[in-house]
Amino acid sequence: MAILHHYPLCPHSRFVRLVCAEMGVALDFVEERPWERRETFLALDPSGQTPVLVMPDGLIIPGAGTIVEYLDEALGDQAGENRLMPRDLAARIEVRRLLAWFSGKFHDEVTGYLVNEKVYKRFVPVSAGGGPPDMNAIRAARANVRYHMRYVGYLIAKRKWLAGDDLTLADLAAAAHLSCVDYLGDAPWSEDETAKIWYARVKSRPAFRALLADRVPGMAPPDHYANLDF
Amino acid sequence: MAILHHYPLCPHSRFVRLVCAEMGVALDFVEERPWERRETFLALDPSGQTPVLVMPDGLIIPGAGTIVEYLDEALGDQAGENRLMPRDLAARIEVRRLLAWFSGKFHDEVTGYLVNEKVYKRFVPVSAGGGPPDMNAIRAARANVRYHMRYVGYLIAKRKWLAGDDLTLADLAAAAHLSCVDYLGDAPWSEDETAKIWYARVKSRPAFRALLADRVPGMAPPDHYANLDF
Repeated sequence: MAILHHYPLCPHSRFVRLVCAEMGVALDFVEERPWERRETFLALDPSGQTPVLVMPDGLIIPGAGTIVEYLDEALGDQAGENRLMPRDLAARIEVRRLLAWFSGKFHDEVTGYLVNEKVYKRFVPVSAGGGPPDMNAIRAARANVRYHMRYVGYLIAKRKWLAGDDLTLADLAAAAHLSCVDYLGDAPWSEDETAKIWYARVKSRPAFRALLADRVPGMAPPDHYANLDF
Repeated sequence: MAILHHYPLCPHSRFVRLVCAEMGVALDFVEERPWERRETFLALDPSGQTPVLVMPDGLIIPGAGTIVEYLDEALGDQAGENRLMPRDLAARIEVRRLLAWFSGKFHDEVTGYLVNEKVYKRFVPVSAGGGPPDMNAIRAARANVRYHMRYVGYLIAKRKWLAGDDLTLADLAAAAHLSCVDYLGDAPWSEDETAKIWYARVKSRPAFRALLADRVPGMAPPDHYANLDF
């Protein structure tokens, strides 16, 4: 079975878990705490970042972007109509644009701050940058997430799914990031009703179940987090 | 002709210019100052970041990662042995891993700081985050670039090019970022002789010529910058 080295509140890891679940790729899990810089993990990927996927034949695939491109290349043809990356070149541009938006921009402006300040810094020694959360960073993330929420609403007002008529990698990346924000209690669902309806649609998919059941010890999510109707 | 919306010292723009030159894609240029947030530029790509490529048929492709994947999908087959993205799935993983390394990690730890502090902040009003450079950020970038230089040297000690036997997107991404660092006078070439030899090899390619001739008004590069033998 393929093995995913992941961290439960790493949004990039969550994205890959959703993609594998949608594509029917069964996974075993190894929980990595990237801040520990485990030698055997660094040997898989010198960048030391989650996630890393190890295929049953030993092939090592580091990084969410590289993993999802590989899965599409290796298994996309079998997926037929359920393919998460469209075949049409222009449609692929739109999916990749939104992947860069959520895995890059949204991460830099929202998820990166929240997960680092609220989660990783609890476990990292002060000498290595750990310690109490920087409230300015958290405030910035809480302000930034609002316009991203409206952007999701804007797209969904025009389209069935974020990149067009079909569910794609773009929806799963966006939902993975938002699920981390929601776990930490910082998702402003009242900001945009259309975005909220889209998220309820994604999180009620069977692929989402295992994610919603995950708990980080000592950090409980808000009550609505795993409620499919909010 | 295709039009590239770029900024001369944006490393992602430089990467796309190198890829287009290697692939024989002729370009017209529009210089964008991303901090001005020009409305017609935001209409091409709401993220407002350079580069954006507009193909002769009007197809809009935002973001270096999306652009180079598109160019490989649309034109890679014609390139034959000069293809910048290998066909083999495992080899593609290694190219994409290194693309993420240089366009992501290296950018976050080196080029992002240097270009932002030394270039962009000169032009942005203080009220919008402009002003004098933050020397702590510049010092961090100068420290970080050393281990990246050694990583390039480590790879080139084992391989002809960064990702294997052939020149790929990985070399062009790494060289594009290093060319910005070098323009700004912060490339520690004495750190690793092997890395320096590799860079001299990449920068002597015809595709690099236009880049080396570019000048930003008021900011001269060091003397060795455009010297192909250093």
